[in-house]
Amino acid sequence: MPARTSQRGKAMIKTYLITKEQLQEDIPLEDWQSLVKDDELLWVDVRAYTPEEVETLARHFGLHSVAVDSCLDGYRRPHLYEFPDHFYVNLTVLENRKRKRTEIKPTELHLFVGKKWVLTLSQQEPSPAVDEVLNEYRETPALCERGPMHAVYLLLEYLVESYFPIVERLDDDADELETAMLQHADKRSLARLFDLKRVGFELRRILGPQRDVLATFARRDFPFIRSEQNVYFQDVYNRMIRIFDIMDTVREILSGSLDIYLSAISNRLNEVMKVLTIVATVLMTLSFITGFYGMNFTHLPWLRSPNAFRNMVIFMIALTAAMLWWFRRRRWL
Amino acid sequence: MPARTSQRGKAMIKTYLITKEQLQEDIPLEDWQSLVKDDELLWVDVRAYTPEEVETLARHFGLHSVAVDSCLDGYRRPHLYEFPDHFYVNLTVLENRKRKRTEIKPTELHLFVGKKWVLTLSQQEPSPAVDEVLNEYRETPALCERGPMHAVYLLLEYLVESYFPIVERLDDDADELETAMLQHADKRSLARLFDLKRVGFELRRILGPQRDVLATFARRDFPFIRSEQNVYFQDVYNRMIRIFDIMDTVREILSGSLDIYLSAISNRLNEVMKVLTIVATVLMTLSFITGFYGMNFTHLPWLRSPNAFRNMVIFMIALTAAMLWWFRRRRWL
Amino acid sequence: MPARTSQRGKAMIKTYLITKEQLQEDIPLEDWQSLVKDDELLWVDVRAYTPEEVETLARHFGLHSVAVDSCLDGYRRPHLYEFPDHFYVNLTVLENRKRKRTEIKPTELHLFVGKKWVLTLSQQEPSPAVDEVLNEYRETPALCERGPMHAVYLLLEYLVESYFPIVERLDDDADELETAMLQHADKRSLARLFDLKRVGFELRRILGPQRDVLATFARRDFPFIRSEQNVYFQDVYNRMIRIFDIMDTVREILSGSLDIYLSAISNRLNEVMKVLTIVATVLMTLSFITGFYGMNFTHLPWLRSPNAFRNMVIFMIALTAAMLWWFRRRRWL
Amino acid sequence: MPARTSQRGKAMIKTYLITKEQLQEDIPLEDWQSLVKDDELLWVDVRAYTPEEVETLARHFGLHSVAVDSCLDGYRRPHLYEFPDHFYVNLTVLENRKRKRTEIKPTELHLFVGKKWVLTLSQQEPSPAVDEVLNEYRETPALCERGPMHAVYLLLEYLVESYFPIVERLDDDADELETAMLQHADKRSLARLFDLKRVGFELRRILGPQRDVLATFARRDFPFIRSEQNVYFQDVYNRMIRIFDIMDTVREILSGSLDIYLSAISNRLNEVMKVLTIVATVLMTLSFITGFYGMNFTHLPWLRSPNAFRNMVIFMIALTAAMLWWFRRRRWL
Amino acid sequence: MPARTSQRGKAMIKTYLITKEQLQEDIPLEDWQSLVKDDELLWVDVRAYTPEEVETLARHFGLHSVAVDSCLDGYRRPHLYEFPDHFYVNLTVLENRKRKRTEIKPTELHLFVGKKWVLTLSQQEPSPAVDEVLNEYRETPALCERGPMHAVYLLLEYLVESYFPIVERLDDDADELETAMLQHADKRSLARLFDLKRVGFELRRILGPQRDVLATFARRDFPFIRSEQNVYFQDVYNRMIRIFDIMDTVREILSGSLDIYLSAISNRLNEVMKVLTIVATVLMTLSFITGFYGMNFTHLPWLRSPNAFRNMVIFMIALTAAMLWWFRRRRWL
Repeated sequence: MPARTSQRGKAMIKTYLITKEQLQEDIPLEDWQSLVKDDELLWVDVRAYTPEEVETLARHFGLHSVAVDSCLDGYRRPHLYEFPDHFYVNLTVLENRKRKRTEIKPTELHLFVGKKWVLTLSQQEPSPAVDEVLNEYRETPALCERGPMHAVYLLLEYLVESYFPIVERLDDDADELETAMLQHADKRSLARLFDLKRVGFELRRILGPQRDVLATFARRDFPFIRSEQNVYFQDVYNRMIRIFDIMDTVREILSGSLDIYLSAISNRLNEVMKVLTIVATVLMTLSFITGFYGMNFTHLPWLRSPNAFRNMVIFMIALTAAMLWWFRRRRWL
Repeated sequence: MPARTSQRGKAMIKTYLITKEQLQEDIPLEDWQSLVKDDELLWVDVRAYTPEEVETLARHFGLHSVAVDSCLDGYRRPHLYEFPDHFYVNLTVLENRKRKRTEIKPTELHLFVGKKWVLTLSQQEPSPAVDEVLNEYRETPALCERGPMHAVYLLLEYLVESYFPIVERLDDDADELETAMLQHADKRSLARLFDLKRVGFELRRILGPQRDVLATFARRDFPFIRSEQNVYFQDVYNRMIRIFDIMDTVREILSGSLDIYLSAISNRLNEVMKVLTIVATVLMTLSFITGFYGMNFTHLPWLRSPNAFRNMVIFMIALTAAMLWWFRRRRWL
Repeated sequence: MPARTSQRGKAMIKTYLITKEQLQEDIPLEDWQSLVKDDELLWVDVRAYTPEEVETLARHFGLHSVAVDSCLDGYRRPHLYEFPDHFYVNLTVLENRKRKRTEIKPTELHLFVGKKWVLTLSQQEPSPAVDEVLNEYRETPALCERGPMHAVYLLLEYLVESYFPIVERLDDDADELETAMLQHADKRSLARLFDLKRVGFELRRILGPQRDVLATFARRDFPFIRSEQNVYFQDVYNRMIRIFDIMDTVREILSGSLDIYLSAISNRLNEVMKVLTIVATVLMTLSFITGFYGMNFTHLPWLRSPNAFRNMVIFMIALTAAMLWWFRRRRWL
Repeated sequence: MPARTSQRGKAMIKTYLITKEQLQEDIPLEDWQSLVKDDELLWVDVRAYTPEEVETLARHFGLHSVAVDSCLDGYRRPHLYEFPDHFYVNLTVLENRKRKRTEIKPTELHLFVGKKWVLTLSQQEPSPAVDEVLNEYRETPALCERGPMHAVYLLLEYLVESYFPIVERLDDDADELETAMLQHADKRSLARLFDLKRVGFELRRILGPQRDVLATFARRDFPFIRSEQNVYFQDVYNRMIRIFDIMDTVREILSGSLDIYLSAISNRLNEVMKVLTIVATVLMTLSFITGFYGMNFTHLPWLRSPNAFRNMVIFMIALTAAMLWWFRRRRWL
Repeated sequence: MPARTSQRGKAMIKTYLITKEQLQEDIPLEDWQSLVKDDELLWVDVRAYTPEEVETLARHFGLHSVAVDSCLDGYRRPHLYEFPDHFYVNLTVLENRKRKRTEIKPTELHLFVGKKWVLTLSQQEPSPAVDEVLNEYRETPALCERGPMHAVYLLLEYLVESYFPIVERLDDDADELETAMLQHADKRSLARLFDLKRVGFELRRILGPQRDVLATFARRDFPFIRSEQNVYFQDVYNRMIRIFDIMDTVREILSGSLDIYLSAISNRLNEVMKVLTIVATVLMTLSFITGFYGMNFTHLPWLRSPNAFRNMVIFMIALTAAMLWWFRRRRWL
């Protein structure tokens, strides 16, 4: 982890000057313009920031008030604002929590990029994306020759890779649910289905604007990207599209699962009704016969026959068998 | 509140001349062309206007008859008409009523913008958007240097911010409904669902054309916006898109809630039918047995047995238990 | 009404020369090219025409055979054909019948427009759109200075305004149906729903191509429209879009009404089944008890008790009450 | 019918040279380049062809191997390939069979068009489209001055007109089905519905690519069409769109019919259930009463009353009437 | 099969130099630049490769690290990366397994194409597409004059043709299922339906990006394709679209089959309920009559009549017949 100091004595503003040979820390921001040479990169990383700190940075780097407001507001959809000599972009960070899968809470990584500098702001203290990329620069400082857009590429790649486990887990959950639905479509599975559907929809809503931002980077005419770097951003965009492919699959699986559930319910109703009909037919018929001999007519045949009981039982069993055979022929059994 | 006077003695036409130092009221409109200097802004605000007043203004500012007609008609969808030296735009104001949530009544704010002037017309007397922006100019008259489009930006920002509580309340209502549906899907919730669906659809229909107007402002090639101001309008547009994101969520939640309702109904029908089938099976079987012994045959076994009652009760309880066990095995209970 | 004469003695071809001062009738068509000066407008109105008359006109004005065929065929979808010195457009007229709402029969208004002339053809004798616009020219002949496209604008405005009552009545009908559905979803309402749905779909299919034609006029690059006239056509197009907004609402309401109907039916089935289950449970239980005491066992308790009747009635009432209480607890009552 | 000869003695290759004065047959293909003058048109018509014949023609006219392969393959979707001096297009012919409506079998008409020649290939012997257009040229040879694209226009017009009876019959069938569904929604109508749906879908799939080809012709920038001819192709395209309008209507009607069917089924189920519930309620109540008096208690009131029968019958009729009145009040009858 | 040798002694890297006269194997890669002349083609084919081998090739041909990473990763969606002097494309190979139809496992063919060379990489050992195209070059080495894009065309054609049997089998399966559904809609068919639906969706997801890549090739402005070759790629693209047409048909058939299933289930429920209602009505009525005469009233008519049995049987048969006649009249039988 880099040292947490800054030129103004406040915690959480960290500055790095990356030259071909090394990564230098604690650069004074006042005269960065004279300090940073061509092919060098100044990185300012701010975390858990206050409005005052952002204002100070805005003064140093000439940041636009709209972009500054965007950093200070609550969660906003990812967007990209271009200015004559720098651009601002708002990226979405998704935390990959192990448990409580159905809760997705996006946080933001604010990014300002100029000709020779990068400025990252995050309200979250642990900002693994930034730490990771800074480490890469520390190991290979010569990367600074590729300009600030290479840092942007590395950040984007890290973020996109971090979305994969989340959507893949959603995909697994949906697969599992579909299998469960095919076996026994119960109410719990249905609740789970609506839960996953909601998560998938949320993810899509959160990542959709992010994808649009990546598409802007991947376009050939984005002014801050040198033409030979364009393919890197195309690659990141392509992986982002793959994430949406997976989310499409999830949506398809869940919509199919609802169809499975509904037809299972219909089927079951049909079966219940068949059982009821068969039971009612057989028992009502038998009851009718017993009712017949329950009539108080004095003249009914066999009333006094000693074999009446045996004969009646045999007749009833035969009748029941005949009715069941008939239902089986109609494929109700 | 500004003084309500005008150069022709009629109430409700208020004129303001904003210079770098101050906001001056009651400017005579006849020779505004000579009065308003470069980097100054003339604002004419008209409320509860009559056709004659609009005609007068049209003469002073050279307004096009199509735009004038649009001001005088009833509610129309937001639209933007560009003319060589000014443009006209029709904005939607939504009142944020506390109660009677399901009623949405849009009103209009008509806006004419020239090189050095802004003209706002509203049939509603209290026009908080205009009051708010005028106050901002009164406090910081130097804003007039940014030209009339900055006033447009402030108005649009106010309006877009005023839509948020409305869609967020709709979002809350939909969430609440979904929770209610998952607990007990009754007819009242269903009526509520169709209600919210209608409100959401209305909102979408009202705000859709407004969004298109904002998109025109956010485009880089809108001629009245200086290139360095463009990012302000992109920002407003971006927030408008977020409103549509929320409305998409509402739509998704409501459509999911209908699915929840319908599957709950199906489930309940299934359960009712199972109860009926179980009851019918058990009671019909028992009734058959009683019917059997109700037959008037003189020769039936155990007819005269003193333990008949006890045995019969025991047999019937056992039979019932067996049938219930069988239903439980088929997962009907 | 203008005089019904023409230069060739046939009824129904009427010619008008509109100069700045007056509207002149009965212009000979043979040498119209020399007669009509700049800033003047020749209007030829033909009704209930025969192929020969159209051929004559085609010769006089150099009309293209494809456009002539389009006039002579039966109903065709609105379309616009541009030629080097004139264009042809096929407009839809909807009759606003009071009764028999569910029948929509579009008729056509054929329109040829050149640099200095307008040619309208209609198979229908009363052609209120043309009469109305001609009256406007008779009252204000100076309008001819705005060129033939102003006549087109007036015709389009008349037509679009004439669609409004039709779609608004459809909207009212749909609203009324939705209210009816919420109160008692019966078969008659359902038939009405499918009726309105069909009407809405027909309207959309008829007006869709008309809207596309209006969109072409509203585009900035349509060559026959001077740039300062463009806003008129944008205005007409905007009102046409509003008609489609209303039709979208109708579609939404009707689709919602079908959902209301279907869930009402499901609900009702559920209720019927609950009643059946309750009735069957109570009466089968009671019948079982009577059946029990109908068995011909000689040894049953209380058979000879003088209070049997009273006790039995009390027991049965208590049992029924208990079952009803149980059903109420399960929210079936 | 033209004579069936060719310059190489093989049946089925017919050649025509159309000059301003006449249509000449049996032109030798070897030196067509020198024979065909400007403003003349060479038409080669081949039917039931073999690969060798196509290869010969390919040599004479310099046809591309991809287009030749396309002629020799089985059915392919309509497509258009442009080459520097000619283009190839693959058109769909639909046979308008009287009976067996639900079978649609498209065949192909291959068309090569150069600056001065047209080449048509068809595996089907009777190729009415080609015969029809050749007859038109035989009657008016001067049409050749309009160039080969006029022949293409005549062919396309013939084909599009030949699609109309097919889609209109489908439209009629769908209308008829809807009426039938509204009267008695039975299983046979349902099978018919799925049949028509399939036919409509097939038609749409077959004609969709054909429409795209027509759209290419109607575009202003298709290089083989002179600008004054463009309107002819716009007209053909417009009629094709009308065919798709009709198919949209068919789809809407069929989807509405399925809704009608499903709600009819639901309705009927509801009615059946109501009948069952009413019957069960009435008869179970009556049976309970008879069961009550079937109990073998010695002390039951009125057991020995001589009016028991009459009173009982009266009581039961009254009870039944009361129950039916109650069901009618609940609108179940 | 070509010999499996390479210039660095490792198995699986095979090199071919195709000149106008012959196909030469085992070319040393170190100095390929000097070896390969204009109008000649160098083909390097690598299978079951290791990262080291790819790195070596990357050095020889100047491959971009993003493309190299794409070769070394697991399955990725097809994409195309253009570089100044070569391009990289990732193609999908579908194995056409006879059995286990519902499992689709795509593998990848990586393709680098320069001005004079083609590089194919496949992790699968048997790579029939590459073998097939190499054989074609071995037979006709002169094809090398058409440049490397012709090899790409032959590979794409092979791949697209290999997709056809897979989608056609899916089409057949869907047809078969639809027929089965129309005959007896059982649960097994439903499971099959969801299975096929999933396969169709998977195929669509796998082939969609492949189609987009083909569309890029078919566009006129793809820089590596000479204008006269463009039509080949249009042809391949057109066949790919046909594959999607078939998949659309499958989707339509399956969605129709689900409708068939659901309406069959509804129908069957209706029929079961009718049977139950008829049975219940008849038997309950008869039981009521027997119950009536089971009452212990001493005064009931005909109690002692000797013809009671006969009359009762006749009456009951007549009553049953009457009820059945009534049900038939209501079309329930």
